[in-house]
Amino acid sequence: MSYFRPHLDAMKGYQPGEQPQDGQYIKLNTNENPYSPSSLVIETLVNGINHHRLSLYPSPLCDELREKVSDVYGYPPDWILIGNGSDELLNIVFRAFLGKGDRVFYPYPTYTLYRTLAIFQEADYHEVPFNADHSLPESFITETARLKVVCNPNSPTGTFLSTDTIEFLLKNSSCPVAIDEAYVDFAYENALPLLQRYRHLMVLRTFSKSFSLAGMRIGILFAHPEVVQGLTKLKDSYNVSWFSQKAAVAALQDVHHMRENAERIKQTRKKFSEAMEGLGYEVLPSQANFVMVKKPGVNLESVYQYLKQQKILIRFFLEWPDSLRISIGTESDMHTLVQVLKKNQKDIMNHV
Amino acid sequence: MSYFRPHLDAMKGYQPGEQPQDGQYIKLNTNENPYSPSSLVIETLVNGINHHRLSLYPSPLCDELREKVSDVYGYPPDWILIGNGSDELLNIVFRAFLGKGDRVFYPYPTYTLYRTLAIFQEADYHEVPFNADHSLPESFITETARLKVVCNPNSPTGTFLSTDTIEFLLKNSSCPVAIDEAYVDFAYENALPLLQRYRHLMVLRTFSKSFSLAGMRIGILFAHPEVVQGLTKLKDSYNVSWFSQKAAVAALQDVHHMRENAERIKQTRKKFSEAMEGLGYEVLPSQANFVMVKKPGVNLESVYQYLKQQKILIRFFLEWPDSLRISIGTESDMHTLVQVLKKNQKDIMNHV
Repeated sequence: MSYFRPHLDAMKGYQPGEQPQDGQYIKLNTNENPYSPSSLVIETLVNGINHHRLSLYPSPLCDELREKVSDVYGYPPDWILIGNGSDELLNIVFRAFLGKGDRVFYPYPTYTLYRTLAIFQEADYHEVPFNADHSLPESFITETARLKVVCNPNSPTGTFLSTDTIEFLLKNSSCPVAIDEAYVDFAYENALPLLQRYRHLMVLRTFSKSFSLAGMRIGILFAHPEVVQGLTKLKDSYNVSWFSQKAAVAALQDVHHMRENAERIKQTRKKFSEAMEGLGYEVLPSQANFVMVKKPGVNLESVYQYLKQQKILIRFFLEWPDSLRISIGTESDMHTLVQVLKKNQKDIMNHV
Repeated sequence: MSYFRPHLDAMKGYQPGEQPQDGQYIKLNTNENPYSPSSLVIETLVNGINHHRLSLYPSPLCDELREKVSDVYGYPPDWILIGNGSDELLNIVFRAFLGKGDRVFYPYPTYTLYRTLAIFQEADYHEVPFNADHSLPESFITETARLKVVCNPNSPTGTFLSTDTIEFLLKNSSCPVAIDEAYVDFAYENALPLLQRYRHLMVLRTFSKSFSLAGMRIGILFAHPEVVQGLTKLKDSYNVSWFSQKAAVAALQDVHHMRENAERIKQTRKKFSEAMEGLGYEVLPSQANFVMVKKPGVNLESVYQYLKQQKILIRFFLEWPDSLRISIGTESDMHTLVQVLKKNQKDIMNHV
């Protein structure tokens, strides 16, 4: 006999990507940044370590960090909620708005965590397929719901919806709309400017991608103060460690460093996309720090396995077996990957 | 119009203790440890900071840390779940077992977060008053429920239930029973040895108190593997930062340091309790790193306010206005506090 709530017993948990801790892989499976965070971050942490900071509770609402976020992004501190990664913020958003049977919509394919979070809430989740050109389906815009979530740029596809499209969605939706902008620093537009005009908009960001701080677990949610206030009730009191707060403050003191790295990654993305097209893959147009490549109808698990043997980790999803998601590493990482794939194709040819 | 679920709109959030970040107070309000963590922790963090560790995701299940916990506490790694503080683990426990209308029991007064977590779940929460001698009421033991939670040593009272009592509770309860042992390193017994025999027991620990690592946010839950597995579904994939994992591993490499500090605090607790009795307070028998002092029927908010003016922070709960909860700091902190209180009493006498 299980003590768990039946809907939890019946589900599988979310399956995160592999995180080998031995550093032996070229790691292109979970969209981490191949470049260092600002050296200011490391200086700040090294200088900040003292027993007092370790033994005392951190600021519950991350006051200093919210001030700094406010300086950089232009919204006041009470429009800002800091999370233990944006995963925690998503978790809070789903719990805040969705009860049993409540309708949540998101376009599909997307970040599979949304489904997991919806199932936790026993919500009625609707996965609306993107149009063939990766645009937003009309039914997604017009359906009534308790919550709509859009990952933009989208994972795992890397495709992007213009700010005009997001605004059109906001105008036509009466429920809260969460735009998960984890990858937006690698795109050309973002939804933050819309926030002033739309009280039902939430914009989520993370320090795990463009800021090279996945190990520190820091996410930001922007929304109108009454929304932030309601969401705050649901977060653990001390959800972000003192170190992570300090690391994020330091990273924001050197936004320039993040933007330079994002620029490099965009250039590598372009080159890598062309190389993969050269190898016969369909490459989805990406505005993220990864690309999805595809051979329609072909199961690509063997390519994933082969690369893993060669100590290159990329992401294969059972749900989309004819596609692979590949994070953009350094120029050299991507060159190695392309060479290994070329060799693999030759080997296969020789076998035939 | 609010978008939030109605029961969330209707509630207040949990109110954490004040966390001034300027270091100007003798801080005796949130049961932090006045002593440093092991110097190994600081060494490990300083040596471990490099960009690679910052930019990569941490181990989702804290593998190295679970191995270390296993070495120290004697249960295998799959009996162990690591959380972003034990608050996250409590949150997960409530979400795992409680849906709308499900009965949860905890003795009262206790950690007020339990009520908040129950309300999140729309659970039917029952706060069963402790007996006058701080023992567990019989109805608490015999009532059927979906979850029972006992904070032991209890906060805010500091009182303790023997392992025999906990075992009696387990024998007479068919639902999951969570024993929140945040303060147990300051007591003389603990419930971990019972775990082998009771599949419905969960034991929660934290690094925030005895290990002097409140700033790092690390909690441990021990339970049978099938319970750990079910709870794991509900946690965020990367819930503990790389730094916090490393800090906890290092702290466990030097458990002796923690035990010495706990011993010092127990000695100070004894002395301080006697001094407070000398000042006319009722002092509840504490096995935690704090004591609750009481003047039955007298509102003690003015004492709290007076101490705050004198740059000493203690905890006043609106819910129990004739009591104060005072964390055990250093000998010198407690001496200062007693002197200030003596002076205050004289001032009041002079006014009369």
